[in-house]
Amino acid sequence: MLRDPSIKYRPFPTIDLPDRQWPSRTIDKAPRWLSTDMRDGNQALIDPMNAEKKQRFFDLLVKIGVKEIEVGFPSAGATEFDFINGLVRAGSIPDDVVVQVLTQARADLIARSFESLEGARTAVVHMYNALSPAWREIVFGMDRAGIKKIAVEGMSRMREEAERRPDTDWRFEYSPETFSTAELDYSLEVCEAVLDVIEPTPERPIIFNLPATIEAATPNVYADQVEWFCRHISRRDSVIVSVHPHNDRGTGVAAAELSVMAGADRVEGCLFGNGERTGNVDLVTLALNLYTQGVDPELDFSDMDAVIQTVEHCNALPVHPRHPYAGELVFTAFSGSHQDAIKKGFAAQAKRNDHIWNVPYLPIDPADLGRSYEAVIRVNSQSGKGGFAWVLEQDKGLKLPKRMQADFSQHVQAFADQVGRELTAADIWDVFRSVYAPEGGNGPFALVDYEEGRSAPGQERRFTGRIRLNGEERRISGRGNGFLSSVLDALREDCGLVLDIEDYHEHAIGHGGDAQAAAYVECRTADGRTIFGVATDPDVATASLKALLGAANRADAAGGQAAEKTLSLADS
Amino acid sequence: MLRDPSIKYRPFPTIDLPDRQWPSRTIDKAPRWLSTDMRDGNQALIDPMNAEKKQRFFDLLVKIGVKEIEVGFPSAGATEFDFINGLVRAGSIPDDVVVQVLTQARADLIARSFESLEGARTAVVHMYNALSPAWREIVFGMDRAGIKKIAVEGMSRMREEAERRPDTDWRFEYSPETFSTAELDYSLEVCEAVLDVIEPTPERPIIFNLPATIEAATPNVYADQVEWFCRHISRRDSVIVSVHPHNDRGTGVAAAELSVMAGADRVEGCLFGNGERTGNVDLVTLALNLYTQGVDPELDFSDMDAVIQTVEHCNALPVHPRHPYAGELVFTAFSGSHQDAIKKGFAAQAKRNDHIWNVPYLPIDPADLGRSYEAVIRVNSQSGKGGFAWVLEQDKGLKLPKRMQADFSQHVQAFADQVGRELTAADIWDVFRSVYAPEGGNGPFALVDYEEGRSAPGQERRFTGRIRLNGEERRISGRGNGFLSSVLDALREDCGLVLDIEDYHEHAIGHGGDAQAAAYVECRTADGRTIFGVATDPDVATASLKALLGAANRADAAGGQAAEKTLSLADS
Repeated sequence: MLRDPSIKYRPFPTIDLPDRQWPSRTIDKAPRWLSTDMRDGNQALIDPMNAEKKQRFFDLLVKIGVKEIEVGFPSAGATEFDFINGLVRAGSIPDDVVVQVLTQARADLIARSFESLEGARTAVVHMYNALSPAWREIVFGMDRAGIKKIAVEGMSRMREEAERRPDTDWRFEYSPETFSTAELDYSLEVCEAVLDVIEPTPERPIIFNLPATIEAATPNVYADQVEWFCRHISRRDSVIVSVHPHNDRGTGVAAAELSVMAGADRVEGCLFGNGERTGNVDLVTLALNLYTQGVDPELDFSDMDAVIQTVEHCNALPVHPRHPYAGELVFTAFSGSHQDAIKKGFAAQAKRNDHIWNVPYLPIDPADLGRSYEAVIRVNSQSGKGGFAWVLEQDKGLKLPKRMQADFSQHVQAFADQVGRELTAADIWDVFRSVYAPEGGNGPFALVDYEEGRSAPGQERRFTGRIRLNGEERRISGRGNGFLSSVLDALREDCGLVLDIEDYHEHAIGHGGDAQAAAYVECRTADGRTIFGVATDPDVATASLKALLGAANRADAAGGQAAEKTLSLADS
Repeated sequence: MLRDPSIKYRPFPTIDLPDRQWPSRTIDKAPRWLSTDMRDGNQALIDPMNAEKKQRFFDLLVKIGVKEIEVGFPSAGATEFDFINGLVRAGSIPDDVVVQVLTQARADLIARSFESLEGARTAVVHMYNALSPAWREIVFGMDRAGIKKIAVEGMSRMREEAERRPDTDWRFEYSPETFSTAELDYSLEVCEAVLDVIEPTPERPIIFNLPATIEAATPNVYADQVEWFCRHISRRDSVIVSVHPHNDRGTGVAAAELSVMAGADRVEGCLFGNGERTGNVDLVTLALNLYTQGVDPELDFSDMDAVIQTVEHCNALPVHPRHPYAGELVFTAFSGSHQDAIKKGFAAQAKRNDHIWNVPYLPIDPADLGRSYEAVIRVNSQSGKGGFAWVLEQDKGLKLPKRMQADFSQHVQAFADQVGRELTAADIWDVFRSVYAPEGGNGPFALVDYEEGRSAPGQERRFTGRIRLNGEERRISGRGNGFLSSVLDALREDCGLVLDIEDYHEHAIGHGGDAQAAAYVECRTADGRTIFGVATDPDVATASLKALLGAANRADAAGGQAAEKTLSLADS
């Protein structure tokens, strides 16, 4: 790389358009979409599609709702011609879909292109020639007049070929190729000459497609070029202004959007941005960008995974994991604060129930694309408590109280740091069980049976239980003004374990006969430590009792003192 | 997908900035770059980097020339803290590189963040809190005043922690997170309050980083937001305005470029656009977009393949084949007209020798990125004659005349249609040899030896040769006004084969003693067919003679008549 690129490269000249209107506009309806997957996309593949793949791609485009499809370059070879001609003859083109083919501006190729579409109800023949200085000088060695003559003669031939075949409703598209790097006044001059040849009407408009064949400047410059063209072209009501952005500078989507704001009626592109070099503009992103603004894109991506599958099969190119709307990671949040915010967003969404999508970090509801929420959060050592809690809730129905989430996350992060990889839901559950033992078994205390009651209305509660303490069954009993305080009393009096309850939560998991209660207790030990216990049980009281014994076991395991005391008492 | 998304989604409100200046501006110097690969990028990985990968990524960033590096989120866990602290203590941070860490606005986390950087010469601590309504209401349940208080108290704490450690030159960065979806006046209000706390000076400016945490509108809207902020923030000369675009709508690069035009001084992003969900803006594309406009990006991607290799190793995510500047397909042209134009562009480039890059379809010289031209063209059934000719020239040094290119391309396309896959250079060479047999052996004629001369100056040339005709050696001789016409005379008189020469080319392959001559002849047969012959030989005359015999063999093989006549003559 040169240290000083200004020796070798030149800045793109700006457009003198101080009263440009597009920066104040918004897009409030979908442009017409033209898919060139089967032409520009296909010609840029390492292995071009065979007939089976082309048919499959065509069927996908129809299913998605694309109404204008460039099906190929019939004069390029027998494979291309035969597929296109077969498509027309098979009668498999729906009534509301128009197919289009591309041709260079040579009489024999134009004739061959019309031939390929014979029998179609409606069809577009799309002719191009390159206008910009580099192409005129380097590729063709011709001046402005010579290049314009190619366009005029070619389009005259197009009109003749169409008139010779009156059974088809022929439409014309002309691309001043390399528009983005050509002089605006020259592109206009050539298009005006083409207008004089074709004589379009509002009922039978011509399509002028303005390619950013090479993306050569920031996208605002392309928008300026398109606005300038829209303002200057005559018979504007008989012209469909179309754009065809490539993505050499990574701003193809922006170029398309800004140029639609600048007046373009139609966008040519490919699914997931296939096409020569860096690709054509991505129609999926464009459509879903409209969708998330409340504008109907008139394309259906409700089964995104099926679309990806077909396109990856036909193109033999991957959709990147970070591809907007489609990539496997784009509805995934790894960081704790993101996870926490998304979790709250889903909860608020459910509570509001107003149908308006407003979830932090998710510009679109994954469900609208056939994706599920389960994929939203994955967990690693950088994830926060919200993520772990989310996984437990999704996986096990447990809704950990806030301070217990914080306690749990320390254990998960320590584990993640130790193993140095992303954790699965199973990993998180394993950590949870090893720490809290919600089914018991992590310490000296285990419940056998219990009864509880009140001696009289208004009196203290009384708890009588049988527990196993280090395998040996014994009776304990206590009193309190509630069930749990009577259990605490029994632990204190009969086992020497002093615990206070700081917080308590319980909720149902599931519905009806299979429902379980999940209970969470936060306790404080005599030496000031905070200990959590959790348990599930079909019975709400039993769940809370088991949660409390779980905390007792952890108080013991963590401290040791209480346990020894307990054991010595038990032995006595 | 909803048929009517307007039920669920709302358009993003536009910014009232009719006198916006950015659309008329261009970028004429590189902004400051901050790589957040090791923070935003790392936290979004399925498997976050271990210490070895982090060190490798850090070293790569330094090598490329990145001067500001966000190395992590030290309060997120022990792995993060230890790596960052180790980096500082190892003294491996170059003098001109500043490291930065991110922290939430909590006193304990801020303290931990400063602690991680203790001992650094210069360091930036970057604090954020989210400002926009969805976050205020859904995530925090706080009003404007409460959220602003978090920012002010956090930044006060930042100042205290810095003052407590005077050995480091501490700098401050504050991100009004979710800036892109927050009310502009509120973001300004919070930043003004932060200014009052930090009291920056032109010598010790504060960085205000304005994240498009979620890309929520077309990129012009973000540019409007940034221009509005730049115009309204006080003490502008003591403020570095930084942008941090994400790519949810596929317009992160455009958002960065337009916002730099709108006044931003600094861009935060990742190599190849890693980062949460759809990623951060891609620093590689941004830098090379500047480079191709003649602006020094102050980042070095002259060994792009090495950069890709390291990033793919550390992130375990691929660079897409169509990624601008970096993808394996972006300097590849499959279509014939593209190949032809590129070939002419390279030739014109070599001829002009003015150092200005101007090759059709290639916005950058691949050599500037350490790529070679050989990768530029690949060939399939949709490729044109230019592509095949290019491969032959690159691979074998053969420069086929134009009409011979057309003849050859028919054979290659037929072969490509038949095998239905991309062709390799070896395939193309195989087709070439099977058609033209440049080393001979494809028909009845083979050269044994020859002599040629002139009876006297100004007289006709005389050719006397020994050839093998179907294995049997025989003498032939002829006369003409030149060498080749005397050979044609011999073929006609002694073998009954009538050929006329339509065109003839010869050129050297290589230099010096190893140089070969390549000869191409275009002949017309008695029955009007056009036949090409090609051969190479150290001797120019011998090469042309062998090329002519090659054409004779093809005339025979293709027609049959001449061969039979020849054979009968040979037998007589």
